[in-house]
Amino acid sequence: MYYAVIMAGGSGTRLWPLSRRSRSKQSLKLVGDRTMFQHAVDRLAPLFQPEQIFVVTREDQGALLSAQVPELPAANFIKEPVGRGTAPAIGLAAIHLKRIDPDATMAVLTADHYITDTEQFRKALKAAALMAQDGHLVTLGIKPAYPSTGFGYIQQGPGIRKTNTFQVFRVERFIEKPGVEAARQMLASGNYSWNSGMFVWRAERILMEFQRQMPELYGQLMQVEAALGKPETQTVLAQVWKKVTEQTIDYGVMEHAENVVVIPVDIGWTDVGNWASLAELLPTDQDGNIFVGPYKEIDTHNTLVFGGKRLIATIGIQDVVIVDSEDALLVCAKNREQEVRDIVEKLKANGDSQWL
Amino acid sequence: MYYAVIMAGGSGTRLWPLSRRSRSKQSLKLVGDRTMFQHAVDRLAPLFQPEQIFVVTREDQGALLSAQVPELPAANFIKEPVGRGTAPAIGLAAIHLKRIDPDATMAVLTADHYITDTEQFRKALKAAALMAQDGHLVTLGIKPAYPSTGFGYIQQGPGIRKTNTFQVFRVERFIEKPGVEAARQMLASGNYSWNSGMFVWRAERILMEFQRQMPELYGQLMQVEAALGKPETQTVLAQVWKKVTEQTIDYGVMEHAENVVVIPVDIGWTDVGNWASLAELLPTDQDGNIFVGPYKEIDTHNTLVFGGKRLIATIGIQDVVIVDSEDALLVCAKNREQEVRDIVEKLKANGDSQWL
Repeated sequence: MYYAVIMAGGSGTRLWPLSRRSRSKQSLKLVGDRTMFQHAVDRLAPLFQPEQIFVVTREDQGALLSAQVPELPAANFIKEPVGRGTAPAIGLAAIHLKRIDPDATMAVLTADHYITDTEQFRKALKAAALMAQDGHLVTLGIKPAYPSTGFGYIQQGPGIRKTNTFQVFRVERFIEKPGVEAARQMLASGNYSWNSGMFVWRAERILMEFQRQMPELYGQLMQVEAALGKPETQTVLAQVWKKVTEQTIDYGVMEHAENVVVIPVDIGWTDVGNWASLAELLPTDQDGNIFVGPYKEIDTHNTLVFGGKRLIATIGIQDVVIVDSEDALLVCAKNREQEVRDIVEKLKANGDSQWL
Repeated sequence: MYYAVIMAGGSGTRLWPLSRRSRSKQSLKLVGDRTMFQHAVDRLAPLFQPEQIFVVTREDQGALLSAQVPELPAANFIKEPVGRGTAPAIGLAAIHLKRIDPDATMAVLTADHYITDTEQFRKALKAAALMAQDGHLVTLGIKPAYPSTGFGYIQQGPGIRKTNTFQVFRVERFIEKPGVEAARQMLASGNYSWNSGMFVWRAERILMEFQRQMPELYGQLMQVEAALGKPETQTVLAQVWKKVTEQTIDYGVMEHAENVVVIPVDIGWTDVGNWASLAELLPTDQDGNIFVGPYKEIDTHNTLVFGGKRLIATIGIQDVVIVDSEDALLVCAKNREQEVRDIVEKLKANGDSQWL
């Protein structure tokens, strides 16, 4: 059967002051009245039933996320004692699924991205499943909208299949976050996609790649697998996970895997990696402003005011991002959102943990 | 004897969101850790003893202000049932003082201005008292620092006395808030002072002017005077004050009074009429910033961040005023502080009374 695995283990610093150590990006209501995690679950229906949706998250976030989507079985939340990167997290999900269904096909999905065209997204997941069932490792590539230096890229090789809606290409290579000139060239060539971090494959197939390319992690996964379904599962997991090396699926598996294909998709995908990308996502008024929460404004332009309960008044402001939270406030020039991280670093360096 | 009368009846909208209907400007801690009203009392020592300091305020603000300066006798708070402008307030103070001391000299002072050179201020009050005891109505004029259109002006006539420190001039005329061109001409001529709203005179002398120029108000004051010291004082005051016409001392008395003199003083006087004038008053860092409360900043210039408990982070911001309060936040371009009033008007028009 086909399963969705939502990766929801991260914590965001680039959306500070809303995202915190204890309040990850996926638990925020950034678009409308649902959290990013709720959106990630919502957009799977009707392709996946609740029983087919699994979540990999951190032990300390599991309860919060589970409460947000009561329709998902609690047992479908796979809780890592500590985050070790995407490779171990995906491996952990794979052994869970293979135990339930030896023939499981799994879509590895994200909770910290937003997708506007959810129908096209589900169509792509369907097309990817067909390729996965043939033994391919499928990546969903995002058609680049601009020469981003914030994403990894996937270079397309020869086309190997074509439907009415999608083309499937062999992956020539994965490229880490490029410089601006390289990014421009890739955008211009038309042969590159952004690496969305969304993958589809058979659980057994990806485990074979772990066995081949990451034998130490594979051995650790087998130790955990032996304990699955027993009372000591989490204890064993905790012991094993202490020794697991942090690694991403891209670097640990994908770059040197065989039969890797990419399906470029156009699904209105947004990273929501910082306040600028959120601003691109939300509807603006005639002055280019976005106001969330109560506000009063005079002569305000191209400004994102992301508030809540408190009133925010702006006068003569343009190209600014204002984000209000209960105990901290951000006022940031619009082309400087990348530096929100530096504020978080300053807080860490200064021991101001109450605002982290 | 010499008495100080602090006028503390106003409420500020130009310092929104800190100043509110229920939280007047004089009750705010804008400079250092004392409220504007506390500063107004502090700077009178050692010229005035606490028993010599009176306060005219509104009934609903009296308790709050009295709690701020427990050293002042509670009986020295003269509470108007409703504000009727400076003329009735001063008249009310005058009848109180004349009853205590028929020979009282009174300095009418403000609580919503800040004075940096308090020693020079007290010297000026001493010099003014000497003139007042000769029967003059003395105004303290502020040497203009720029062509302000926000203050009234006083035109100096012939000099009539000169000490080491001060010159005393006859007042030629009072000028209401001018246009910018007139303001420039007055600044250039050197013969004009800003009208600070600070006056010194004998209580009996100003009451004579009321009798001559505002006979209706004088009659009303006499009704109140007859009740002073009796249990029914406030009841009588409330009845009389209902019928009192609103009037300023400048318009009602000063413009047509006799023996009016001005002493131009240079005492570091600031109106603190809006956030811009507060910014001029507080010390800046090397980038021209003022930070009150916890903050983290990156590349921030010429910006006032007036916070409190919440952390305020700024990135790439310049020439902005950020004022945080418990339930509302202002982000305002630095040359637009005058429009804070318009935000308050919008709130009124919209019935958003929780933020007024």
